[in-house]
Amino acid sequence: MKKNDSITPREEDMGKWYSEICLKAELMAYTKVKGFIVYRPYGYAIWENIQKWLDAEFKKTGHQNVYMPLLIPESLLKKEAEHISGFAPECAVVTEGGGKELDEKLYVRPTSETLFCDHFHDILSSYRDLPLKYNQWCSVVRWEKTTRPFLRGSEFLWQEGHTLHRTEAEAREEALKMLEIYNRLGREVLAIPFMTGRKTNREKFAGAEETYTVEALMPDGQALQSGTSHYFGQGFASHYDIKFLDEDNTLKVPYQTSWGVSTRLIGSLIMEHGDDNGLVLPPFIAPIQVVIIPIRPGDDPKVMEVSRHLKETMEAKGLRVLLDDTDKTPGWKYAQYEMKGVPLRIDVGPRDLKDNKVMYVRRFDEKKDFWPLDEQIAQRAFDQMEEITKGMYDKANRYLLSHIIEVHTWDELADVIKNGKGYAKMMWCGDEDCEIKIKQELNATSRCIPFDQVPFMDTDPVCGKKAKYVVLFDRAY
Amino acid sequence: MKKNDSITPREEDMGKWYSEICLKAELMAYTKVKGFIVYRPYGYAIWENIQKWLDAEFKKTGHQNVYMPLLIPESLLKKEAEHISGFAPECAVVTEGGGKELDEKLYVRPTSETLFCDHFHDILSSYRDLPLKYNQWCSVVRWEKTTRPFLRGSEFLWQEGHTLHRTEAEAREEALKMLEIYNRLGREVLAIPFMTGRKTNREKFAGAEETYTVEALMPDGQALQSGTSHYFGQGFASHYDIKFLDEDNTLKVPYQTSWGVSTRLIGSLIMEHGDDNGLVLPPFIAPIQVVIIPIRPGDDPKVMEVSRHLKETMEAKGLRVLLDDTDKTPGWKYAQYEMKGVPLRIDVGPRDLKDNKVMYVRRFDEKKDFWPLDEQIAQRAFDQMEEITKGMYDKANRYLLSHIIEVHTWDELADVIKNGKGYAKMMWCGDEDCEIKIKQELNATSRCIPFDQVPFMDTDPVCGKKAKYVVLFDRAY
Repeated sequence: MKKNDSITPREEDMGKWYSEICLKAELMAYTKVKGFIVYRPYGYAIWENIQKWLDAEFKKTGHQNVYMPLLIPESLLKKEAEHISGFAPECAVVTEGGGKELDEKLYVRPTSETLFCDHFHDILSSYRDLPLKYNQWCSVVRWEKTTRPFLRGSEFLWQEGHTLHRTEAEAREEALKMLEIYNRLGREVLAIPFMTGRKTNREKFAGAEETYTVEALMPDGQALQSGTSHYFGQGFASHYDIKFLDEDNTLKVPYQTSWGVSTRLIGSLIMEHGDDNGLVLPPFIAPIQVVIIPIRPGDDPKVMEVSRHLKETMEAKGLRVLLDDTDKTPGWKYAQYEMKGVPLRIDVGPRDLKDNKVMYVRRFDEKKDFWPLDEQIAQRAFDQMEEITKGMYDKANRYLLSHIIEVHTWDELADVIKNGKGYAKMMWCGDEDCEIKIKQELNATSRCIPFDQVPFMDTDPVCGKKAKYVVLFDRAY
Repeated sequence: MKKNDSITPREEDMGKWYSEICLKAELMAYTKVKGFIVYRPYGYAIWENIQKWLDAEFKKTGHQNVYMPLLIPESLLKKEAEHISGFAPECAVVTEGGGKELDEKLYVRPTSETLFCDHFHDILSSYRDLPLKYNQWCSVVRWEKTTRPFLRGSEFLWQEGHTLHRTEAEAREEALKMLEIYNRLGREVLAIPFMTGRKTNREKFAGAEETYTVEALMPDGQALQSGTSHYFGQGFASHYDIKFLDEDNTLKVPYQTSWGVSTRLIGSLIMEHGDDNGLVLPPFIAPIQVVIIPIRPGDDPKVMEVSRHLKETMEAKGLRVLLDDTDKTPGWKYAQYEMKGVPLRIDVGPRDLKDNKVMYVRRFDEKKDFWPLDEQIAQRAFDQMEEITKGMYDKANRYLLSHIIEVHTWDELADVIKNGKGYAKMMWCGDEDCEIKIKQELNATSRCIPFDQVPFMDTDPVCGKKAKYVVLFDRAY
């Protein structure tokens, strides 16, 4: 049920709906430079909550945070040919410093592989130093022509993990382990079911041997790449001359990984869960988890008394609670916190208090019910956080599962893609030509080769050749 | 007692001693671009611990985190004349983006006042929106000719608070309140006693009406500005057209503050507490608070058993504990953790275990003693954190107090400054000419006008005119 007249309905114009939520939920603001946004307190707090969860997981798995420089000298960036050709065209370049023209151009980091490699070259000496498991939280700049808040910006915030290992097996395991952390972030925190798998050669990261991905499916049937984890093999390490003395006293080249997620996840959240009344936030990253609305507090002093007591006991449980005791009307407040996607609302009114109860309303499914005013009430609110997360995940997962469509012919493929029906699950021959044809004619790309391979026909419907892999094709953000 | 032969004694060459600690304690590494460093895990973890304490204090006092863009268009930077003239010469400038020459130069932020002002202009409308209390964690770039790790870099990490208030009184109070948080950070966390006060007009921040400062005194008698808090008045707000509709229905210009500390604090820590054996870290920001060294574990299985038990029980108390069970010699380990400044070391050896005790050694004062192996041991280690912090603070404070020298004549002033005896506490007429003369002839600047003003003579010894303020002069990093 649409109650908020102030935003464009999603069905009418999804792009407009999206932009309006970004502004009206006060997630961001535009600036004078295209593609560079202000992360406002409410938007930034979501990112801080995502950071907090991920950072704890990274540290639990033995990773250490570091900080690399903002600027990369051109000569350093150029050492890995494939990497520079992938990134140079989208870089911002510093040519003046301290009032003078610089001798060498400095690139604002679009990603920090080259910096990590240069540092690894300097510090690695023995097999005893391995593995080196580093992570960095920072912003990166990639010049974009078409920009959209969170989804595609010329600057975005992210984390980038960079690790070195003694053996190929250990590095491959690391890349998959970090992907699984992203997958759990989706399932346990963001309530977003991801499709996981590896990228085709054509869609791999510039310089990677293998790229793994977590992909979300948006309500318009398009995919949104939400995080990647790369196994680099020894490519970068060889180009940047990274070596270690192994136990057998010979010099060896280590195996490398990198992995990252960005503020794009906020875009993912908005589109995955939002509705015509605004944002719908999963509880564990919501800046406000519970909002308490006192109704006609002038009628009964108990209204404010109970409201304050609820806030206190819920905060004691670790919940993030807002008690809105401003003089605005309850109706205005309902609309406001629906727009901001607060997971749980509690109305404290004189009539319900007479029956010794309060009403709660869940944002994501609009479920309303009453809780008796007893000692269990804070615990009940606390338990709702887990329950709402599960409910949101299940809803999103039902949508996902019903939008993976097996296609057996070119026409079926074209129908799924053109009509935004979701992922086209197709048997693929493994040849880039088919991907190019699909890109040219349908503007879709292979999103991933799912880990779970269950072949369902023998030939590739695009070229008629023998099929090798199950692949998901889709248009993507 | 100097036990570590691998670094230059501080007395011999303080600059060399400092650089060697930075490298050997693995705080940082140099990169190919001058003034840009890698913050290695051990150095970055110190910053993370400082961040954690400050961020909690900022949030407790009602501040919200935001993130502003990395790049500032030239036209925006130019709106406040004093500000641009102060910062433009030390900026890094982006002139190319996405493979093309840009129409307008973009400055890598040297500080973000102009960005915050532009945003405040966009979002402020009513007195109900005030105060706006924002903070940002980020890196900034200021091109420096002479650089030194942490103390002066072309890029550094910092936080910058930016707030808007309805009244002058409230804004002035905010600026002082934030300075007091920095002062408490020194006293309670970093064990650094700061001199606090306000800057003279000459030493103020470009565009501020009042600059407050916390200054640390280094062992060579030089001052180190460690944090500043500015009251801007309505200057920036007027230039950037920031207005709000007040309760009386008239448009008014708000009052503004900004305040910041940076990774310079890590430099402060190194110099304030370090000795000829390396770093000495105050416990609350130490990445490792307790290191446990098993001695001859092969002689008695109880050595490892007790070591592991101590680690567990101490971690249960929230302590950051490292048990070094590598096959390196105890002597190598002692030197290593002294270099890294770990506050508390515990040796677990077979001989002491026979007497049911373990030995502990405090890094900062080399105090050694025994603890009986009973249930209180983790609590004793925990209590040491507070005790060591106090001990380090008292030591530093005794040094500070004995290095504030009242000067009554030019010769006394010159003696204190030239011989690095500490702060020259001088009665000053308030005229910039005296500051210029002191700068030109002694290379010293006024560090602050202390809040606590106790005049001790009537005339300024530099010019002979009537004295107005007690001021501390010193050379500074």
